[in-house]
Amino acid sequence: MTDYRPSPRIPIARDKLLFTPGPLTTSHTVKEAMLRDAGSWHYEFNAIVKSVRERLLAIAGLAPGSSVGRVPSPADEGWEAILLQGSGTFGVEAVLSTVIRPTGKLLILVNGAYGERIVQMAQCLKIAHTLLRTPEDTQPEAAAVDRALAADSSLTHVACVHCETTTGILNPITDIGRVVKQHHRVYIVDAMSSFAAVPIDFAAAGIDYLISSSNKCVEGVPGFSFVFCRRADLMATEGWARSLSLDLLAQLKGFDKNGQFRYTPPTHVILAFAQALKELEEEGGVMARGARYRRNHEVLVEGLNALGIRLYLDPRVQSYIISSFHYPADPKFSFDEFYRRLSDKGFIIYPGKLTEVNTFRIGNIGRIFESDIRSLLAAIRETVEEMRVQMHQP
Amino acid sequence: MTDYRPSPRIPIARDKLLFTPGPLTTSHTVKEAMLRDAGSWHYEFNAIVKSVRERLLAIAGLAPGSSVGRVPSPADEGWEAILLQGSGTFGVEAVLSTVIRPTGKLLILVNGAYGERIVQMAQCLKIAHTLLRTPEDTQPEAAAVDRALAADSSLTHVACVHCETTTGILNPITDIGRVVKQHHRVYIVDAMSSFAAVPIDFAAAGIDYLISSSNKCVEGVPGFSFVFCRRADLMATEGWARSLSLDLLAQLKGFDKNGQFRYTPPTHVILAFAQALKELEEEGGVMARGARYRRNHEVLVEGLNALGIRLYLDPRVQSYIISSFHYPADPKFSFDEFYRRLSDKGFIIYPGKLTEVNTFRIGNIGRIFESDIRSLLAAIRETVEEMRVQMHQP
Repeated sequence: MTDYRPSPRIPIARDKLLFTPGPLTTSHTVKEAMLRDAGSWHYEFNAIVKSVRERLLAIAGLAPGSSVGRVPSPADEGWEAILLQGSGTFGVEAVLSTVIRPTGKLLILVNGAYGERIVQMAQCLKIAHTLLRTPEDTQPEAAAVDRALAADSSLTHVACVHCETTTGILNPITDIGRVVKQHHRVYIVDAMSSFAAVPIDFAAAGIDYLISSSNKCVEGVPGFSFVFCRRADLMATEGWARSLSLDLLAQLKGFDKNGQFRYTPPTHVILAFAQALKELEEEGGVMARGARYRRNHEVLVEGLNALGIRLYLDPRVQSYIISSFHYPADPKFSFDEFYRRLSDKGFIIYPGKLTEVNTFRIGNIGRIFESDIRSLLAAIRETVEEMRVQMHQP
Repeated sequence: MTDYRPSPRIPIARDKLLFTPGPLTTSHTVKEAMLRDAGSWHYEFNAIVKSVRERLLAIAGLAPGSSVGRVPSPADEGWEAILLQGSGTFGVEAVLSTVIRPTGKLLILVNGAYGERIVQMAQCLKIAHTLLRTPEDTQPEAAAVDRALAADSSLTHVACVHCETTTGILNPITDIGRVVKQHHRVYIVDAMSSFAAVPIDFAAAGIDYLISSSNKCVEGVPGFSFVFCRRADLMATEGWARSLSLDLLAQLKGFDKNGQFRYTPPTHVILAFAQALKELEEEGGVMARGARYRRNHEVLVEGLNALGIRLYLDPRVQSYIISSFHYPADPKFSFDEFYRRLSDKGFIIYPGKLTEVNTFRIGNIGRIFESDIRSLLAAIRETVEEMRVQMHQP
């Protein structure tokens, strides 16, 4: 690995690799699918939209017949995958602003920036809400959710982030969901960065609404989010929508009516996503993709540990999606310089998002492989040497 | 042109041409710009976003110094171009839901589906509103706006669609704007399908907020909208936003803070748009682009007229963006068959959107030229012959 000697002065021949939580590095074939102009009203494009929605249900284990023999089977409960223009945040806000009745009240589990964002949405939409906050390195406990729901019968909905990319912590959505269902409340899961890489059992977790987006573990490009929900549940929300563009029920009715988006869809992004779904299937589906990301994560943590760069989270709560690492202790370490030097070598990492602790983040998702992680590790080693940062190796 | 004999059985070698109001046919180089994965947090991408915002201001005649010598000059009033994820509708709703105070009241000029959509937004957002409706083939009159504003001092904002693609009618936004400004109200213009092809004088029309989107006359691909407004006006709207995702003020503050979108932008779509802006500049800007579309329109109307297919609108109110045409009178004409046969030949037209009259629409915008219009005309002639539709030629 000592032969890795790119010069910042010489442009690299390929795109910089993104070790970020999305937008991420996608395959060339996914991007090539965008070299076409499709008519958003045209039947050929509508057929692609239909296929994308069906294949998303299949990946989620929600397609009719896909979970034969399991009891209870969510597959026959009329699940839908609804695509919505905009980023993942638009999808989360669409769920909140459509499915919570005016007198509803939301319990929000918060242990990072994406939980906080749901709080901001509830404030902006004037939805009554209560928080259950845990430190950023700590999972919420099902028992605490149980107590909160027992204590406040006006709570109608519970929202939880699956993988909090603020730190990379994976929250126990199934344990929490069991409690939510014992209390017969509606359960909303923000699975933005976990869906299609971390297996999710909708039935066991009692999930009613789950949101993810095009530019995460399906490895598409950014431009839309998608929501899984039961048709009958959504149909019962008539009249509650607080926005026209973000009206999830109207969006489903639009697809019902003529197979089209109500408003102009990002056609090229959808063509790329259809290709990304094909490549996910070819890779072997969610389990195989998860295994690749897990291997990326293991090689990364082991390699950085050898350099003296420590993981922020307890490994028992750490996802294989993205990880936060402490800055080296040497005050000569400047994240900005570190970031720019790595960028010049062709590697884009991600800044930290914690207020109390200095961290940076490295994502393991996207079209990156163990060999890419090893190249990144070599570049990090070179960079700390160039910066003459003293490392405390274990 | 009689040698044009494609077979529906043989796939055509290029994309079908889109004669639609967007998504539209874009250049190959615009699409090729999407063959890169950019980091949405990365400084290289932020520089592109900054450049896109600046170049949009320049096209609109709102860049500092761009309108030297004119009085009054809007250029020094601190205009901003704010990009927002989602379709154009998201941009219009972002303006309404951000800039109208809770006690505000909106006068909506309606002569087509996009005016009606603004009504739907106001209903959904619970914004007090009044309509000024004219038939779909009729422009709203400035005098009527004058009377409406004089009669109701509680009206704070006026919204008007520039080119109503329902029919293709061009509304007199400057005449209306003069009246709006005489009454000191806020003026919102939906210029979705006209911006960058029909010259717009912000100062003369007294425009406060103008919305367009990436996949219209700039000839980019769909995925975001953009809003022009004065910074000071928007800053005065603090606390009024009815949505987090569609909060236009927060979006501007996000760009101010670190040059980034608050939430994941459609990175590839923005790279394509940067290239589309370059190609707009190379073509000679708004005037040159408008001239090409006008020529497309003239050749189209003349050619269809020769076939006995009549324009729906009075030519005096007809834009050169998109046109509605009456169905041929022969009851053997089936739009569905006509559409499919044209699609098989490589030409995608657009259905009508009028309730009372049977029309279809043909757009003149996008990377299409007079030669493409002539090819379309030849295909239409062949198709009506194949369908044995009796045409009443003038």
